[in-house]
Amino acid sequence: MEETFVPLRGIKNDLRGRLLCYKQDWTSGFKAGFRILAPTTYIFFASAIPVISFGEQLERNTDGVLTAVQTLASTGICGIIHSIIGGQPLLILGVAEPTVIMYKFMFDFVKDRSDLGRDRFLAWTAWVCVWTAGLLFILSILGACSIINRFTRVAGELFGLLIAMLFMQQAIKGLVEEFRIPHNENPNLTQFIPSWRFANGMFALVLSFGLLFTALQSRKARSWRYGTGWLRSFIADYGVPLMVLIWTGVSYIPAGDVPKGIPRRLFSPNPWSSGAYENWTVIKDMLDVPVVYIIGAFIPATMIAVLYYFDHSVASQLAQQKEFNLRKPSCYHYDLLLLGFLTLLCGLIGVPPANGVIPQSPMHTKSLATLKHQLLRNRLVTTARKSISKNASLGQLYGNMQEAYQQMQTPLFYQEPSTRGLNELKESTVQAATCSGNIDAPLDETLFDIEKEIDDLLPVEVKEQRLSNLLQATMVSGCVAAMPLLKKIPTSVLWGYFAFMAIESLPGNQFWERILLLFTAPSRRYKVLKQKHATFVETVPFKTIAIFTVFQTIYLLICFGLTWVPIAGVMFPLMIMLLVPVRQYLLPKFFKGAHLYDLDAAEYEEAPALPFNLATETELGHGASYEGEGEIFDEVITRSRGEFRHTSSPKITSSTSTPANDPRSHLSPCLSSSPYLGELRGERSPRARGNEPHSPMTGIGRSPLNPSPS
Amino acid sequence: MEETFVPLRGIKNDLRGRLLCYKQDWTSGFKAGFRILAPTTYIFFASAIPVISFGEQLERNTDGVLTAVQTLASTGICGIIHSIIGGQPLLILGVAEPTVIMYKFMFDFVKDRSDLGRDRFLAWTAWVCVWTAGLLFILSILGACSIINRFTRVAGELFGLLIAMLFMQQAIKGLVEEFRIPHNENPNLTQFIPSWRFANGMFALVLSFGLLFTALQSRKARSWRYGTGWLRSFIADYGVPLMVLIWTGVSYIPAGDVPKGIPRRLFSPNPWSSGAYENWTVIKDMLDVPVVYIIGAFIPATMIAVLYYFDHSVASQLAQQKEFNLRKPSCYHYDLLLLGFLTLLCGLIGVPPANGVIPQSPMHTKSLATLKHQLLRNRLVTTARKSISKNASLGQLYGNMQEAYQQMQTPLFYQEPSTRGLNELKESTVQAATCSGNIDAPLDETLFDIEKEIDDLLPVEVKEQRLSNLLQATMVSGCVAAMPLLKKIPTSVLWGYFAFMAIESLPGNQFWERILLLFTAPSRRYKVLKQKHATFVETVPFKTIAIFTVFQTIYLLICFGLTWVPIAGVMFPLMIMLLVPVRQYLLPKFFKGAHLYDLDAAEYEEAPALPFNLATETELGHGASYEGEGEIFDEVITRSRGEFRHTSSPKITSSTSTPANDPRSHLSPCLSSSPYLGELRGERSPRARGNEPHSPMTGIGRSPLNPSPS
Repeated sequence: MEETFVPLRGIKNDLRGRLLCYKQDWTSGFKAGFRILAPTTYIFFASAIPVISFGEQLERNTDGVLTAVQTLASTGICGIIHSIIGGQPLLILGVAEPTVIMYKFMFDFVKDRSDLGRDRFLAWTAWVCVWTAGLLFILSILGACSIINRFTRVAGELFGLLIAMLFMQQAIKGLVEEFRIPHNENPNLTQFIPSWRFANGMFALVLSFGLLFTALQSRKARSWRYGTGWLRSFIADYGVPLMVLIWTGVSYIPAGDVPKGIPRRLFSPNPWSSGAYENWTVIKDMLDVPVVYIIGAFIPATMIAVLYYFDHSVASQLAQQKEFNLRKPSCYHYDLLLLGFLTLLCGLIGVPPANGVIPQSPMHTKSLATLKHQLLRNRLVTTARKSISKNASLGQLYGNMQEAYQQMQTPLFYQEPSTRGLNELKESTVQAATCSGNIDAPLDETLFDIEKEIDDLLPVEVKEQRLSNLLQATMVSGCVAAMPLLKKIPTSVLWGYFAFMAIESLPGNQFWERILLLFTAPSRRYKVLKQKHATFVETVPFKTIAIFTVFQTIYLLICFGLTWVPIAGVMFPLMIMLLVPVRQYLLPKFFKGAHLYDLDAAEYEEAPALPFNLATETELGHGASYEGEGEIFDEVITRSRGEFRHTSSPKITSSTSTPANDPRSHLSPCLSSSPYLGELRGERSPRARGNEPHSPMTGIGRSPLNPSPS
Repeated sequence: MEETFVPLRGIKNDLRGRLLCYKQDWTSGFKAGFRILAPTTYIFFASAIPVISFGEQLERNTDGVLTAVQTLASTGICGIIHSIIGGQPLLILGVAEPTVIMYKFMFDFVKDRSDLGRDRFLAWTAWVCVWTAGLLFILSILGACSIINRFTRVAGELFGLLIAMLFMQQAIKGLVEEFRIPHNENPNLTQFIPSWRFANGMFALVLSFGLLFTALQSRKARSWRYGTGWLRSFIADYGVPLMVLIWTGVSYIPAGDVPKGIPRRLFSPNPWSSGAYENWTVIKDMLDVPVVYIIGAFIPATMIAVLYYFDHSVASQLAQQKEFNLRKPSCYHYDLLLLGFLTLLCGLIGVPPANGVIPQSPMHTKSLATLKHQLLRNRLVTTARKSISKNASLGQLYGNMQEAYQQMQTPLFYQEPSTRGLNELKESTVQAATCSGNIDAPLDETLFDIEKEIDDLLPVEVKEQRLSNLLQATMVSGCVAAMPLLKKIPTSVLWGYFAFMAIESLPGNQFWERILLLFTAPSRRYKVLKQKHATFVETVPFKTIAIFTVFQTIYLLICFGLTWVPIAGVMFPLMIMLLVPVRQYLLPKFFKGAHLYDLDAAEYEEAPALPFNLATETELGHGASYEGEGEIFDEVITRSRGEFRHTSSPKITSSTSTPANDPRSHLSPCLSSSPYLGELRGERSPRARGNEPHSPMTGIGRSPLNPSPS
């Protein structure tokens, strides 16, 4: 994305880009059929459950002026609108924690003012929203989002981890609360006598840990060994919602002399109960707000504007990370503009505004990647089975699958058809075939284990469409009506779910993985090399990684600490924005360009003139010489930008050799000795094969992660 | 073991065998140094904790005549004596569930008799023990244990699984009880009002599941990625006891208004409290028992004798399974004789007798295998490091390690020094070395990942000695004094521990693994082939495996059902003994000899004349041609007796290729193509290498477990 500050240009570009694929956004969504329900329900729960508990929080903080009804309504309405006319349909909107905190502060400010007070709270916040909307318009028109490119991994992942910490904190706080008497509740009720409180607390522990554990397990269902494939993928797709239902069911088992209030359940008025809907007509009270306050509303407005500008953009950015290989354009400027309108709308109907949320947005993309993977997989499995039944050789088989794959690449007419192809066949596969000398002998499934193989052949792709977002938003709005049902969910299940979300958001976060790396015993670091791992693991010395990570961690803790400071807490985004200059001007003073580039590539940095080691060199070399071939080009870009890659470690061990997306991998002598490889992998220039058969060795040999002999 | 019924011969042979290695039993124990404490504490907890809870059970069933004090004392005394003058020091003695049940029945019989009653209960049981002892003497002298060979896997593993079920049942019962008012307790105590009972139950759930989960995790610590090696192995060695302590600590966290009785803790009188020791003088009351009852005591005696004969022998057998490659002789007859004396002793001092227990005995052997592995490993790692620092090649390295290994094989002077050697280097290792063309180039640790490799090189061996058994028995006796401390353990932790023991006893039980196999999705069965797996997985059609397993499961359920029948329940061993004729005469009518042989090899069966498939054939072929070489010979025996083996699946997949202990493995063409292999693996006759390079293919190709293309 070009960095332009010419008024409106950013918005124009965005619109042009998205309009071209707008139709396709819908068609491809519907093409997915009922399978679209898997990501939909998954995200629906992920966005509804927090919104509900934020609603409860808000209810306590605003003497019941705002409740879960309003937060759900806001999330639903904004979600629906955004999914239809929004720019980036992967972005999930919702009422977020910071908004809740802001509203608390504003209420505390208002309630003691004689000339405002509880009754005119919403009218005043309406003004705040008006101002906020105005500021957002200006920001988006002036192309403020252009600088989003300057938000590198460091910033994005730090923010992601911060959110995860906040969710986990909420889960723990919630569990502790289960042992206490809740605020503004009558402490003389049976369920609040010490014994029942203790019982409630223990029950809460059982329920929340039960949910957390089973939910985490169910996500792994696809790789289970037991049960039929159908069951496994059903559990993997719908396991988490299912577990919420199951554990809610469990919470009803202890009947008899257990009082009604145990375990504690969601509390919120039904939308049709009196006073639950007075907010909708707030617009008519707006003029009753004294002018001074109308003007004063500008102050909170600026804070919210900054907050939203940042939140919304980063959420969108994290939902479009490079790893996902998205094919449709981003849309930051226009989305910010739309957010302005949505904020205005929310203000006028007296509900707290929604904005792009983390971790739901990245979770959404991930779940759509899984969906796409499943669709491609099924298609390829049938192809493979067919060709095997026709006694195809490994070579033919691979060819057929390539073909089938290309057919499924719906070309976006505004760009030349994707040149992306299947990953190369795994070294191990070809090797086994070569060694057992039957690479063009007919295969049977005992030799070619279809399902496993195809999983490794498929590159990451995302089902980019608007349907799942629209559906989940609609379901969230539906919750307003389903309030009586939602109230059956025990709060403890909620806390378990918060913990689950926090944990789910960690994998793929390189910051988190570097932290783990610090705790990995030196003698075990080779294990990291044997799995999916980022470039820096091989190219950056461990010491540098450590220093970089410690710096980032300290920064994270400072931000986390800030969230505890009363009003300043809302401004922690400023701290994170501060990272941009820090990253751009400070860090380069302390870290080698090449290292920084692998740890946290920024678009404004060119590839380092002198690559750090031979491995990198050859990679980049390849990149240069194959720009024509989309796949490899993408790959090199991706990799050199510090995203994940597989590499089969050349160490002498019996490790799970992970598929090798790595141009170097095909150079392992045993392989290049096979005459069949050329045809299988697209011939390389002899030069390329010739000049570094040992580079992997040296590459890894130099790797800072190998156990030292001491 | 020869099948002899000549009086006393069995005992003579046993004594001869064990006396030869008696001294070594002690020396090697002390040589192990402090490391011996790992298996010791592990087994100490495994044998003390159940004994204590059986003691509590007994206390309820005998109006407090017998308590945990007596069960602990009995376990301690018998354990110490057995560990010193016993035959098989791997065997763990303890008061077992069946004994407790028998004593309950006897007490119910006695208490209503006016001429016996509560006071003469122990005197009468003393007579029962006298008779039992007599019967055991006769059985052992007549060499009844000879037929132990007829107890094949089917019987042993079925019994093992039955015990596991009983432990699990106890755990569940116990947890349910936590919600109820315990027997003969005052229901008006605060902790028994509904609210506190519910709280107690929930707390119990937290504690027991907490213990179960953490204990299971800690056993895996060695393979963790985080923490230093020292910490990892400490946790793996002492994790389970540690967790008992930790969760006991946790149970003290909720203070304040929580009444003292929550959570419930072990209840048992201190040994010095009045009436806790009247049993010791029971011998003087023995003559007050009316003659008719003295004679009548013969009836329960027969049952107990049968029970012990079976229990004791099977426990001993399971502790000496083939997989463990024990080097010292078994000692069934003599141990049964000794058991007679111990029973007599226990009777006369009025404590319930102890006998060989499952799963503790196999657990003991397993933990000693781990110990031995650690000792060998450390030695080899140093050797390897040294030779690598001397730039040794893979060939030299392997040679040096072989040497170091042989030095550690303390030869038992009564037999020629062990011909056992290290396992062959992993196919993958050699292959990698060959392919990367540096097999005799100097290695560095980036190419040869020492710790990982050595784990695969080492064969299973057990540290056979008496020290660990003596120490654990002494610690158990110590518990009698430590009663006040033991009482701090919450009963719920106990239940968690029972579940843990049940689960720990499952791995390695082929019956259990076959049950799992039935639930494995056909498309995932190949995964079984890729791991350690028993021969039958490849040689027996799935349908046959299924039928065999279902039969065994039904039989298991019948036995389990029997344990619920009041008095007959104690006789479930008879049901299991019935398996011997069933196995010997009935099963062969329904199953092919070859299949039965792989599923459940019995010594009285010869190797099948016509091996089932090519794979088997070649194996046996090898076996014949290499009887000279201990390793391979052992291996073939082991394997053909249906024990575990590794095999690197020749399928074309990127599986974790497990080390290949398999004579066939070195025939994989890619390998045999390497000129270096001969030197590395001990040259084979060209004939052998020539004649079936593809047999693995065909072998697996025929395998019933491959996913069908449908």
